Amino acid sequence: MHELRTPALILDRARLQVNLDRMAARATSLGVNLRPHMKTAKCLDVARLATKGQAGGITVSTLAEAEYFARAGFTDILYGVGITPDKLAGVSAVQALGAEVILILDNPDTARLVVERAGAQGGACRFLIEIDCGQHRTGLLPDDPRVLECARIIVEGTNCELRGVMTHAGHSYDCDTTDAARVVAEDERAAVVAAAETLRGAGVPCPIVSVGSTPTALHAEHLDGVTEMRPGVYMFGDLFQHSIGSCGLDDLALSVLTSVNAWREDEGRAMVDAGALALSLDRGAPDAEGDYAFGLAADIAGHPLTNQPRIRQVNQEHGFLPGLTEAPGIGQRLRIFPNHACSTAAQYKQYHVIDEDGRIIDTWDRTGGW
Amino acid sequence: MHELRTPALILDRARLQVNLDRMAARATSLGVNLRPHMKTAKCLDVARLATKGQAGGITVSTLAEAEYFARAGFTDILYGVGITPDKLAGVSAVQALGAEVILILDNPDTARLVVERAGAQGGACRFLIEIDCGQHRTGLLPDDPRVLECARIIVEGTNCELRGVMTHAGHSYDCDTTDAARVVAEDERAAVVAAAETLRGAGVPCPIVSVGSTPTALHAEHLDGVTEMRPGVYMFGDLFQHSIGSCGLDDLALSVLTSVNAWREDEGRAMVDAGALALSLDRGAPDAEGDYAFGLAADIAGHPLTNQPRIRQVNQEHGFLPGLTEAPGIGQRLRIFPNHACSTAAQYKQYHVIDEDGRIIDTWDRTGGW
Repeated sequence: MHELRTPALILDRARLQVNLDRMAARATSLGVNLRPHMKTAKCLDVARLATKGQAGGITVSTLAEAEYFARAGFTDILYGVGITPDKLAGVSAVQALGAEVILILDNPDTARLVVERAGAQGGACRFLIEIDCGQHRTGLLPDDPRVLECARIIVEGTNCELRGVMTHAGHSYDCDTTDAARVVAEDERAAVVAAAETLRGAGVPCPIVSVGSTPTALHAEHLDGVTEMRPGVYMFGDLFQHSIGSCGLDDLALSVLTSVNAWREDEGRAMVDAGALALSLDRGAPDAEGDYAFGLAADIAGHPLTNQPRIRQVNQEHGFLPGLTEAPGIGQRLRIFPNHACSTAAQYKQYHVIDEDGRIIDTWDRTGGW
Repeated sequence: MHELRTPALILDRARLQVNLDRMAARATSLGVNLRPHMKTAKCLDVARLATKGQAGGITVSTLAEAEYFARAGFTDILYGVGITPDKLAGVSAVQALGAEVILILDNPDTARLVVERAGAQGGACRFLIEIDCGQHRTGLLPDDPRVLECARIIVEGTNCELRGVMTHAGHSYDCDTTDAARVVAEDERAAVVAAAETLRGAGVPCPIVSVGSTPTALHAEHLDGVTEMRPGVYMFGDLFQHSIGSCGLDDLALSVLTSVNAWREDEGRAMVDAGALALSLDRGAPDAEGDYAFGLAADIAGHPLTNQPRIRQVNQEHGFLPGLTEAPGIGQRLRIFPNHACSTAAQYKQYHVIDEDGRIIDTWDRTGGW
């Protein structure tokens, strides 16, 4: 890490493994399949570790990810963003690589349009109906009659297959206690199980009942009636997940390596070469004073600096780091733990993987774009 | 644009040219060289257009950009982020491609370290001393004795050459009137000219006197004593630059093409497939109600929708667009004008270039990373 060109993305292999093992154990104890969401890592090497000993399915957030993982031999891919008809050609291209892609939708208009388009092209289309369990972003409420309407459109469509229902408790990110996350986890479970029962009651099979968010996966008391969960950011952790009790500071596997390039003695402030692009502009989690900043500064070994200073301001390639208790040297290397691992990792093409002694042991590529 | 996979980055060729011509005319009328900052566009095709008829120099924000442009034949490259000793090997590699790279620094510690390292390697190192004209990010105040100290360290160094002084009036982005921008432009000019005079008074040549920001470049009354300016975002414009009077809405050359994938009648809200990654999380400019959002929605032809609705919330691949006056169709395409062109463009690998009729006429690659 003393030689890498900065800024660079660092992934701690041992911490990653701890995080993966913890979630795998959770899935086992909850009796569900783990279908990890690869939108954070977007990396084959991580996906292989995250699916080891699991059923093998993954979740993705873009067709670019779907194609990347299909090319590498992943065959069970849930594309977790509402499908539109114009994307079906891309889905077919991924399926031609040997993968089954499961799509989601949440309204009869979409269902009619995609079923019509699916009928005109080769290869099966598989769907989950998206349920709203309280985030009110997308999805149908479990008792909305359109759940059954969507199901019927799919079931009657040529080349179309209904696989079940799914939901995402995005509002679990608003929970600042584990008790609150437990309540949301139960809402998430109850919503999607209710929708599954509606379908089955109408004679429509519903083999997949899917939930997914890192906080609810970690805090759910039980997942009776659920078949799989789709957490993603648990692999790396970040300051935001730490702030809501999803991981410890010692679990943070992702950091940005940066170099000090200026020091203002009068303001006790270092400038570093990790700015808005290297860290992302995601203002995830407030510090003890409630200040939302851009990442926590640590030494090159990953130990947070005295008083846990944060990057307080960023320009495109400049990070402002006040609050240091001693003057850093020009060129001194620091590591910044990000607010939101998904946003920060998205800025890079690769991970520099380190072992427990901070030695770089590998370089793992990641995909991006759409 | 009806066929592209969304989200996709759209560049309006005609608007780009208008913006380039306007800034070229400004440089001519102010009597300075235009050394455009390529940190926004990061694109060879744009750089060739932006330097047409100019002296040919460019500014970059990363070594990755420096290398990309040097490989394509650009020979006069200012690397506009404070150098650290560990980056000198990368600079040498770029210079080995045939380019002269000019570095910046703002303190004697850095000067000593880099001059020592420069002496040990082949090839000349060229420097500007960075001056603080009021942003208080980096740079030395013009009357700081360390300006001359840095100059002496460089001038006495082996393989080292002092080219002059530079500053960046980043605080011009805080100006919400053109009068205020004019005042900052004069502060910017005066600071760097004063530093140049200090050097010359001490017998140190100072051929380059460099300023640069889009608002000050557009609003400066004169640039007496300045030799070049380095604006960047003027090429594309964005909502933030519009909000501070740097461009009109009709000048916005960059937009994100997106598809509607859900519609909630009860909330009058569309969901689009451009979220936090596709738009970036840069919250640049408030709307009339003072709400900082994530971009302005327009139809596929680039005309803002009725009441100028904005993306109000984003998740990784979801954008929330309330305030529509009529229901969009599923799959309908919209264009989102971004808050901050630099942040948004950085998320993409290429531009889809359109003509005045909205036809895609070219695809231009861009570089990224570090």
